[in-house]
Parts: sequence; C-alpha cells; structure tokens
Amino acid sequence: MAQQQVLFLDDLAVGEEFHSAEHSLTETQINDFARQFDPQPFHLDNAAAKESFFQGLAASGWHTAAITMKLLVSSLPLGSGIIGAGGEIQWPRPTRPGDALRVISKVLEIKPSRSKPDRGIVTVECLTRNQDGDVCQRMEIRLLVMRRPEQ
Amino acid sequence: MAQQQVLFLDDLAVGEEFHSAEHSLTETQINDFARQFDPQPFHLDNAAAKESFFQGLAASGWHTAAITMKLLVSSLPLGSGIIGAGGEIQWPRPTRPGDALRVISKVLEIKPSRSKPDRGIVTVECLTRNQDGDVCQRMEIRLLVMRRPEQ
Repeated sequence: MAQQQVLFLDDLAVGEEFHSAEHSLTETQINDFARQFDPQPFHLDNAAAKESFFQGLAASGWHTAAITMKLLVSSLPLGSGIIGAGGEIQWPRPTRPGDALRVISKVLEIKPSRSKPDRGIVTVECLTRNQDGDVCQRMEIRLLVMRRPEQ
Repeated sequence: MAQQQVLFLDDLAVGEEFHSAEHSLTETQINDFARQFDPQPFHLDNAAAKESFFQGLAASGWHTAAITMKLLVSSLPLGSGIIGAGGEIQWPRPTRPGDALRVISKVLEIKPSRSKPDRGIVTVECLTRNQDGDVCQRMEIRLLVMRRPEQ
C-alpha cells in the first residue's frame, strides 16, 4: 500500500470517496458485543433468533456502527482524527455471521466554521455494505475537521 | 424491584418516560472499546488525549451509544425487544473515565403501520446524562414495536 497522505479541511472535496478494507463478522463477535451492550435473544442465541423478527442471528445495529467506525478510522486519513459531532443512522438490513463488511465514505458537504477559522464541519455519507453489495447501514455523519496547522 | 410489566404498542403513550440504572464508565472500558472499534489516540492514551481536541481521555461516541443501548434494553421493557430502524444521534460533550451514565427515554411519537396492522414505529428520545446531569448523548431513535400478540 502506498504511503497514506494525511488530510485536512482544505484537502477534501465534495464527492470524494474513500473505500475501506473488509471486516469479517463472526458469530462469536456478534455474541460478545451483544453480551456487553445489547443482550437480546436475537443477538445471542441462534434458536431464539430464528423465531424472532430477524429470522436468524443478527448483529446489534450498534455493533455494525462500531465496526463501521473501525473501518472509517483506517480509511479516512484525517490529520485531526475522526471526531463526530453527530449524525443520522439507518439500518435497512441486519448484518449476519459470515458477512464481509466494508465502508464506502463520500464527502457530501464542507462547511468552514464562521466563528472558528481553524476548522469546519464536513458531512460524510458512510455506506456499510456486505459481500453482496447490500447496504446494511447508511450513516450521514458530521465530522469536525481542522485546517492544516501552520508550520 | 417490582416485577417488570412487558409493554407492546398499545401500552405506550406519548410523553411517557423510562429511567435507566447507572453505568460506571472506567478508563479500562474506554481503552478496551477503542482498541477494538475506534483506535484513536484520544480514546487510548492519557497523555495524547490531553494534547487533543478533547483535552483529556474521552470515550468513543460509539462506546457511549453502546452503553446507552445496554441501559435502554434494561429500562424499556418492550415485549418484542428493542429493534431500531434508525435515528439521529448527537454527542454534545464526551463521556469520561469516572462518569456515571444513565439514560432517560421519552416517547415522542407513536405511528401505527398502515400496511402492517400488527406493528408500528415509535420514536423515542434517549438522553444519556452523566452524574452532573450534563447531556453527553442525545438520540432520537425509531423503534419497531409490535402489538400485543393475540392469545
């Protein structure tokens, strides 16, 4: 892999895309996360999950969101880090054991701050897709991005 | 604790509130989550965090979201489980080691489904507050809630 360039506010352009590596989701990961943060039968137990709304074991949406963040941190090389102010999130379909997830991020808007000239808010769409290309999570997140520090 | 009543769509009322137990956030928890899902210096290393935007170690926003889900699962006793379709999330301030987090959930809207009479979408505001009452996360989440199954 080529050396990764570190990006600041002025380096970004609307429409620019970033593609992540893949994360392989396992049943053990789904169960471990659920035990800690979302202990519901359809995330913990195969038999109970089959009888549930999800019709089979599904990861917690917050697990999908956390994996998305991991993939984002390694694919969107912001010099000031990935600092989220907030956003909108949807889970059109669950993620499952065996899924290979990847994140495609696209810059939607760049708004320099009026009051703080060293920074801006960048809105990024992050689509988390499985191995079939299905969108399992759609997020529009507002990131705080700094301008390149003066040398 | 009194026996918890299980709630379905018709049992909920706009304005109704649910209060969670507390979760004590530790530095170890913050580091463990960050190593797995958000490996950035301000979530992993005290010294680096002091020099960062956060001016001290802060939990990943997704960690705060995951803890919120845990507190929600044990405080909002929906008979069909907590099934999120999506929502809007904001992190007005970070969560820190030593914080005692709790979630106050309020029903904002109840929309029976037109096409599927056995269910509806309930919008719930979840405020995650620290021990000083500061809101660290505000979420408006759309939950799929089933009607009570016929006997």
